[in-house]
Amino acid sequence: MWRFIVASKTLTPPSGTRDFLPNEMVKRKHVIGIVSKIYESHGYQPMETPSMERLSVLLGKYGEEGEKLVFKILHRGRKLDKVLESPNLVKKDLSELGLRYDLTVPLARVYSHNGNELSPIFKRYQIQPVWRADRPARGRFREFYQCDVDIIGSNELFAEIDIFIAVCEIMDLLGFKDYHLLLNHRKLLSAIVELFGLKKESETQILISLDKLDKIGREGVSKDLTEKGVSPEILEKFNELFDLMEIKDLSFNKMIDWFDSKPLSQDGKTAISEIKILHEWAENSGIENHILFNPLLARGLDYYTGPVFELRLEGESSSVGGGGRYDDLIGDFGGRKTGAVGFSFGLERVLVLMEERKMFIEQIAIAPVTVAFLDTSVVSWGLKVLSKIRETGIRTDLFPRSSSPGKVFKWASKVGVKFVVLIGSDEKESQVLTIKNLVTGVFEKVPFKEINTFFNMD
Amino acid sequence: MWRFIVASKTLTPPSGTRDFLPNEMVKRKHVIGIVSKIYESHGYQPMETPSMERLSVLLGKYGEEGEKLVFKILHRGRKLDKVLESPNLVKKDLSELGLRYDLTVPLARVYSHNGNELSPIFKRYQIQPVWRADRPARGRFREFYQCDVDIIGSNELFAEIDIFIAVCEIMDLLGFKDYHLLLNHRKLLSAIVELFGLKKESETQILISLDKLDKIGREGVSKDLTEKGVSPEILEKFNELFDLMEIKDLSFNKMIDWFDSKPLSQDGKTAISEIKILHEWAENSGIENHILFNPLLARGLDYYTGPVFELRLEGESSSVGGGGRYDDLIGDFGGRKTGAVGFSFGLERVLVLMEERKMFIEQIAIAPVTVAFLDTSVVSWGLKVLSKIRETGIRTDLFPRSSSPGKVFKWASKVGVKFVVLIGSDEKESQVLTIKNLVTGVFEKVPFKEINTFFNMD
Repeated sequence: MWRFIVASKTLTPPSGTRDFLPNEMVKRKHVIGIVSKIYESHGYQPMETPSMERLSVLLGKYGEEGEKLVFKILHRGRKLDKVLESPNLVKKDLSELGLRYDLTVPLARVYSHNGNELSPIFKRYQIQPVWRADRPARGRFREFYQCDVDIIGSNELFAEIDIFIAVCEIMDLLGFKDYHLLLNHRKLLSAIVELFGLKKESETQILISLDKLDKIGREGVSKDLTEKGVSPEILEKFNELFDLMEIKDLSFNKMIDWFDSKPLSQDGKTAISEIKILHEWAENSGIENHILFNPLLARGLDYYTGPVFELRLEGESSSVGGGGRYDDLIGDFGGRKTGAVGFSFGLERVLVLMEERKMFIEQIAIAPVTVAFLDTSVVSWGLKVLSKIRETGIRTDLFPRSSSPGKVFKWASKVGVKFVVLIGSDEKESQVLTIKNLVTGVFEKVPFKEINTFFNMD
Repeated sequence: MWRFIVASKTLTPPSGTRDFLPNEMVKRKHVIGIVSKIYESHGYQPMETPSMERLSVLLGKYGEEGEKLVFKILHRGRKLDKVLESPNLVKKDLSELGLRYDLTVPLARVYSHNGNELSPIFKRYQIQPVWRADRPARGRFREFYQCDVDIIGSNELFAEIDIFIAVCEIMDLLGFKDYHLLLNHRKLLSAIVELFGLKKESETQILISLDKLDKIGREGVSKDLTEKGVSPEILEKFNELFDLMEIKDLSFNKMIDWFDSKPLSQDGKTAISEIKILHEWAENSGIENHILFNPLLARGLDYYTGPVFELRLEGESSSVGGGGRYDDLIGDFGGRKTGAVGFSFGLERVLVLMEERKMFIEQIAIAPVTVAFLDTSVVSWGLKVLSKIRETGIRTDLFPRSSSPGKVFKWASKVGVKFVVLIGSDEKESQVLTIKNLVTGVFEKVPFKEINTFFNMD
């Protein structure tokens, strides 16, 4: 037997992590259930990877800042002793494994490793936690779930539309109405930089500025661009585009017309034509109201090569998901160059928004029915009652103490139980159960034989 | 863009961990789905805890050997620099967090921490991975799922029977028939040690020997006991018990009679009476055929205080789950002494056994229907067909390339798709789809309007 004292402050979960108690879990399971169901019904297959990856797999993928956030696993036993005894102790000798930082790098590893077993066309979804040693803040956690779909093995826009359809279906089923998939193309962004007469080398810096549009507004972006050496003449050109974007209800065609009237590069023309195709297909799929062409959408990650997209809710400044085409990443992992499109659904953000907007219809974790045995002499018969109620399919709890009815009711009201079925010696003798409806406060007498009917009716 | 070479050996998951590809995932999801469903229908509520725990919470709970197996998270940034600069570098300064080792200690922490929010009677289930730096071996992993139910807040045997009923229902639904819950009582084991005239101090050693009965047989145990200084006279008494246990189809009552005829201690008498009650209740619940009284069952963990039980399959020497009552553990975490009973379902072992016994009815990850667009001119119409098929509820994939029918069929046969719906310009014009049934090899022509009926019929 172990005996110890635990200071109460250490009873909280570690900084940046959370305990999910039942009422929270029920909501998480509801959302994850819908996401999985829709992805599966669209032909995406489930996959999971280990929480740990080799540091050789993780490092070099997330940039210098990202890399600092990787949690590393300390060596153990003799291996650790040996490292510590070494006169030239180097940090990197202390560890060779790290915790999963995202779901994309593990996917690339698995696809490269299992090329023969997996089909060259591979549609997978993956819902698992990832870990980042970020400074914890409101809504930012060190352990949080990611929820990714990817299609590997297609260079065609079928992949993009396939993902759009599934994402819209998920949002509909969750109960969102005011959502948009902002759509842009990586090659269009390059073409704009070129069109405006900016140097290719400054492209990344320009994109970083544009990416902040939602947060700092067009004035902020203009200031940012000026500080980066963009001339007033070129800024004027950006302003024309900003102006265009601000026209309320600007039609898709008007936006396209603007680009068609400019001397875009060949890549830029390809990008516009791909956006047109995706828009047409969205119409055919009945989701065109949810797709918005946004030629300034940049998306942070630098591995995108084609269309990029971001899921937004009206009036919310942060995204609830995003993705794009990344045709080089799989090849970079040592295999053949392979077309790929992915989308990461912002599960944690969606949960917060659904809570704020009171979108969860009553979803309580506790079973609606509790059966209470008033003393041990009735248990034998009571267990039959319990089993008969469960046959109706209603979630039914057994109150694990023999208590007075008052105590059971008090507990049941507190936790949200709807019906308490009391079983005492009177009930056993008469074969008639006493059921209290805690919503109405009404007691009913229900013969044992009719218990199925009683609970089926509710 | 990142460019790098990854050696192919590093593409495997880290030692002792696994990638779960879709076909494996479908089986895991099937089993986890049944376990969750039954636990929820019996009133157990879902809970999850962080993957990391403070080492102050983890250490001191799993014994010296267990503690060595805890994965520790290395400090980062300045904190690590500071430790490494220190002239008196001590191992324990390198880390303050570890990965979850089991689900019981986190439960005790959460219950102690959230005492006010949680009901004093708390029935929870939890299905999450745990990590142990064990030497990897066949069937032994460093990351594996545990699947626990616990009832906190009951000192009565209602808790035990509640768990037995749920476990039997899960086993039934998974398709197992030859399973048993071996049942014993911690206090009976102590009483036996006392009855046989052994010293209280030697109890733990005796229990360790008895725990090996399944692995080394009664001769092995006898040898073990002798080495531990048990006299031939006392060994003779153990032999009487071994003999009794070996009688085929020995009735529960005969076994009880044996104990009733002995001068048991008061604790021993209580244990026997509790076992009688549980047996009677099992009869009332229709699960008595699955409950076997086994007075030699020891169960490794030393925190058990009452009934202990172990889930076994006929002819399998290792258990597929186990648990017991632990009335002191919660109190040890700083709260009030609180009755508790728990059971851990051996998910990974069950999956292996179901695979070996071919208990998975065809459960393929790939969607049964694939829609293939033969060229981009048909996509607009094809997307309508796709959406109409999905309305039937059948999982339907979009083949994300425009390929020749031959290539689609080849891929579809390989991965196990059942129907390929071809959409080319002929189909678009005639509004009649070509569907290949890959099981029979037959082609069918199905008018677009009848597509619902076609897939609803299958």
